[in-house]
Amino acid sequence: MPPALEQLRERLGQVHDLHVVAMGLSWDQQVIMPPRGAPGRAEALGTLETLAHERFASEETGALIAAAREELNGADPDGFAASLVRVAARDWEKETKVPVALKAELARAGALGYEAWTKARGASDWGIFRPHLARMVELRREYAACFPEADSAYDALLDDFEPGMRNAEVAEVFRRVRETLVPFLAEIAERADRVDNAFLTGDYPVAAQEALVRRVIAEVGFDPEGWRLDVAVHPFAASLGTQDIRITTRFDDDSFLMAYFSALHETGHGLYEAGSDPSLERTLLSGGVSLGLHESQSRLWENVIGRSRAFCGWALPGLREAFPGPMAGVSEDEFYAAINRVEPGLIRIQADEATYPLHIIIRWELEQAIFDGGLDLADLPEAWNAKYRDYLGLEVPDDAHGVLQDVHWSEGMLGYFPTYLLGNVMAGQIWQRLAGEIPGVEALVAAGDFAPIRAWLTDRLYRHGRIRTPAETLSHAAGGPLDAGPYLDYLTGKFGALYGIS
Amino acid sequence: MPPALEQLRERLGQVHDLHVVAMGLSWDQQVIMPPRGAPGRAEALGTLETLAHERFASEETGALIAAAREELNGADPDGFAASLVRVAARDWEKETKVPVALKAELARAGALGYEAWTKARGASDWGIFRPHLARMVELRREYAACFPEADSAYDALLDDFEPGMRNAEVAEVFRRVRETLVPFLAEIAERADRVDNAFLTGDYPVAAQEALVRRVIAEVGFDPEGWRLDVAVHPFAASLGTQDIRITTRFDDDSFLMAYFSALHETGHGLYEAGSDPSLERTLLSGGVSLGLHESQSRLWENVIGRSRAFCGWALPGLREAFPGPMAGVSEDEFYAAINRVEPGLIRIQADEATYPLHIIIRWELEQAIFDGGLDLADLPEAWNAKYRDYLGLEVPDDAHGVLQDVHWSEGMLGYFPTYLLGNVMAGQIWQRLAGEIPGVEALVAAGDFAPIRAWLTDRLYRHGRIRTPAETLSHAAGGPLDAGPYLDYLTGKFGALYGIS
Repeated sequence: MPPALEQLRERLGQVHDLHVVAMGLSWDQQVIMPPRGAPGRAEALGTLETLAHERFASEETGALIAAAREELNGADPDGFAASLVRVAARDWEKETKVPVALKAELARAGALGYEAWTKARGASDWGIFRPHLARMVELRREYAACFPEADSAYDALLDDFEPGMRNAEVAEVFRRVRETLVPFLAEIAERADRVDNAFLTGDYPVAAQEALVRRVIAEVGFDPEGWRLDVAVHPFAASLGTQDIRITTRFDDDSFLMAYFSALHETGHGLYEAGSDPSLERTLLSGGVSLGLHESQSRLWENVIGRSRAFCGWALPGLREAFPGPMAGVSEDEFYAAINRVEPGLIRIQADEATYPLHIIIRWELEQAIFDGGLDLADLPEAWNAKYRDYLGLEVPDDAHGVLQDVHWSEGMLGYFPTYLLGNVMAGQIWQRLAGEIPGVEALVAAGDFAPIRAWLTDRLYRHGRIRTPAETLSHAAGGPLDAGPYLDYLTGKFGALYGIS
Repeated sequence: MPPALEQLRERLGQVHDLHVVAMGLSWDQQVIMPPRGAPGRAEALGTLETLAHERFASEETGALIAAAREELNGADPDGFAASLVRVAARDWEKETKVPVALKAELARAGALGYEAWTKARGASDWGIFRPHLARMVELRREYAACFPEADSAYDALLDDFEPGMRNAEVAEVFRRVRETLVPFLAEIAERADRVDNAFLTGDYPVAAQEALVRRVIAEVGFDPEGWRLDVAVHPFAASLGTQDIRITTRFDDDSFLMAYFSALHETGHGLYEAGSDPSLERTLLSGGVSLGLHESQSRLWENVIGRSRAFCGWALPGLREAFPGPMAGVSEDEFYAAINRVEPGLIRIQADEATYPLHIIIRWELEQAIFDGGLDLADLPEAWNAKYRDYLGLEVPDDAHGVLQDVHWSEGMLGYFPTYLLGNVMAGQIWQRLAGEIPGVEALVAAGDFAPIRAWLTDRLYRHGRIRTPAETLSHAAGGPLDAGPYLDYLTGKFGALYGIS
């Protein structure tokens, strides 16, 4: 490898190490750190961020990137070297175009905003949070202005989470989802009470849940030699390289649903991280290429596979053994219907698979109204409530169950919500192609034989890391550009059958 | 605070953060990391070390130290500022006087030596390890030559672990210990079989052990808001600042001794780390001032307190409740005698309190023979075996149970062993003074009231961190310089009473 490229690689390797270390400390803080460790941990994480920034966003790194680009000299654009230079250049520009003072102000406003949001939600008082959101929107406009090449301020924000995605594409996809789902869910609502899910609440001892969850995810792909499963209040996945994947879940006393589906969800994230080609290890090409594609894998394993009829059949004997009381007389069909019961609700993180998309669309539409529609933030709660009425047929009783429910905006994550639904859409596309290329995939799931599915996903998606752009990566895995069709076919097919809607 | 001092403090704070982070990752690796994470972890730790070294051992740091020293201008030499400059200067000189190439070679030889030692011990074959030890001795001589101001090569090595300690002091103390203990142990040997400790092996369920150990150390000073207890193959303590203390222990199936006394030992280390004054946090003045003083606290809590008659009386009801089978009919005196049974053995880490010192003295004497006595390494096993015969009356059957039992030399830790016994000696001195100043301290222990003991130790030792030199720190805590007398009085008093020797 030529000298500048080699130097760049080593420098990026060090930056990568600092990020991995910070990820490890953050995992530790959320999972096992003694409470009083927090202030010292904040100092340590701050130092790591400072050093990583100094090392990466320096003129030396910029010069190395430029010199390495010269050395490429017609190399395969999808090869390691060209990709490394392309991704390094993109990340470097992102990091150097924003003034340090603005970044500091964003961090400060995020910390204050989070604190205010906690209070506001507790008191269900929009007035406490409104000025903080106003300040954050102002700062995010300044931030977006650092990227004048973007089509709009919102496009610049979206690009941080879904690199290269244009908001016009999101708008088209979300419009189709909304136009299909709103009337479809209205039809389901008329038939909703025919599903019994009462047995899902009952005597579900935590120790039996943990043993069951460990058995299930071990079959799905969790490998104790290179993974950990722990408990966290807000389940998440962290990767410290491809050989140290840490997922978390949470156990409720009276239901296994949270533990079981969170574990499947985070296993999906973990499989994507663990599947990067070993040659990409310790470079910024390892890992997921966008939040949407990452979420496509958590949702594919949690929903498309984990909530499928075939998976229910495979998992039920283990569930009956683990929970002989409540699960004793439950049939495969009853179990499948119960965990897929559709019930519009006010809270996004409690939503079922069919109503979830509308929660995201509402948030995204309100972000459009804020950034491009001149919506006054004083009117945001009423706008929120109106959309829940129109799309889900629900009355929001107070802001704690409405506009104040999510943490994201308080910390400045504006433009983030759409990636959740993009993940569902991409999962639909990827699964459709996979099912076309692996004949009898449902029989494999029913038999608990997930290896061929993992192998296909690794070959088409996981192993490539960030070698290609997100759009190219999706196209390579799904066989085409972003398209709501397969996802809507999947949703209406699955829930149409469950609720007798043709 | 004047500018250079403030800059120095911030720079040292960053270096401290990197060390804390490395400590956290090392804890993680020994306690919970999935096995396949090791190579990535090695890269990350390497990067942290490189960055910490670059930042600390730079000319800028040297210039800041010099400028800060100018600013002191007659400040109290035991004050924060003067101590920070003194300790920073000492550490900086230690780190900059050794050529980088020699450090790299030491690291390489240590890695190879460790590997060879593992094989050699497994095969009980001295020949496999000898050339590696020879290379390490050669490199350590080169290392010592970087510090020509030391009285001898061995003094230079010792200074890394026990800063400022001269080997002549060690020699005098160790001579007294040996001359007292060898005949004393010979007397005990004649009476050894009168102590029954058979009940210490039996039905000791691990879950009951863990609950018991947690209850005991919670009384001694473990605080779940700022500490963790976990399991490690080789128990150790790590501090990530004073508010995140992590200790470990190990559980055997058929005996609680390892778990119980390791936990007390590591709690002692933890109390020293946790007790640094908050104003020293995130500076290199926080934490223990030398390995010997650190070990004085682990041994004080494990042995002087934890194996005392008073502590046995306090702990026995809890032990009976936890282990109703084997501990049912055991009296306080029987328990006290059993855990203090003296039995010369071949293995250092299994040694009782009375014979332990001779294991250390043997190693230290052999290190003298290697560095100053011209001992040929081919003759080291026989020299080892001769000393075990002379001092402990034992025949060494093979090198795995002799010269190959410890890991230290393989990794280049020559000059380290004496700190273990120095810790015992210092613990004897500190305890004698404490007992003189806290009337009725034994009654406090018997009542499980450890707060006054912790408060005294915090006031005289823990809170000062590295504000004073190790010698000054010992003198402040113990009321005088290093002295074997109190320790020997303690040992001969305790074991004389137990074995009826006047």
